[in-house]
Amino acid sequence: MTPQRVNLITLGVADLGRAKAFYAALGWDPVPSPPEVAFYRMHGMALGLFGLADLAKDQGREGATLGFGAVTLAQNFPDRAAVDAAFAAALAAGATNLKAPEEVFWGGYSGYYADPDGHVWELAHNPFWTVHEDGTLTIPDPE
Amino acid sequence: MTPQRVNLITLGVADLGRAKAFYAALGWDPVPSPPEVAFYRMHGMALGLFGLADLAKDQGREGATLGFGAVTLAQNFPDRAAVDAAFAAALAAGATNLKAPEEVFWGGYSGYYADPDGHVWELAHNPFWTVHEDGTLTIPDPE
Repeated sequence: MTPQRVNLITLGVADLGRAKAFYAALGWDPVPSPPEVAFYRMHGMALGLFGLADLAKDQGREGATLGFGAVTLAQNFPDRAAVDAAFAAALAAGATNLKAPEEVFWGGYSGYYADPDGHVWELAHNPFWTVHEDGTLTIPDPE
Repeated sequence: MTPQRVNLITLGVADLGRAKAFYAALGWDPVPSPPEVAFYRMHGMALGLFGLADLAKDQGREGATLGFGAVTLAQNFPDRAAVDAAFAAALAAGATNLKAPEEVFWGGYSGYYADPDGHVWELAHNPFWTVHEDGTLTIPDPE
């Protein structure tokens, strides 16, 4: 048994300054951190940015490659307009548009962008899931 | 501005049955889901497993490759013994040992393993961060 949870997501980045500038452009504030890393507080968890070579070394590997979409980090929103607004803000911050928000086959509304290192973010409204006031998400029991 | 949060982490997997079996071996319970996907409830968020080709299509890409460590998902624990126990449980479940838990330069204790698709998980005790009873994490203000 291991606990069913994630407390920290670390994104390996090619240029920490570039990555921090991008997330700053999204309006995100890192906590005070050593110069080689940046941590962002989230609901009961955190996101970290760390040099790709340092991250590979930390993992005991010779090298690591940047992502090609095998992981996506998603943000859920209470309605489509909020998705559109956040997507526009991300593009304005320099994100690469992979797929503009649109209706998708599972009944929701979703778009994808890539950050400067190719890390893929999905912005979505899922009418079957609950996004609370504090931004946390609950998957309801099936009806 | 976009909200500083992650609500859903989706891991692209080569074989959904194999991936589900691995996470079941960790003791994790998915919510009832359609056959092509598996979702796991976490604290105010969720983890999803989804076929890599389906995920690439969902992202509007021709293809996606499995990860090589550019993203790590971490679980934090209140002490080293809890890290060791969870790491042993992961290996028993079939995880690949990348780095057994050890003291690390930043003052913590950390190990890494890979899941069957190469997604990298870190199990750590960080004496400078607070893990609450419910498993959520807080990064304290610097002293």
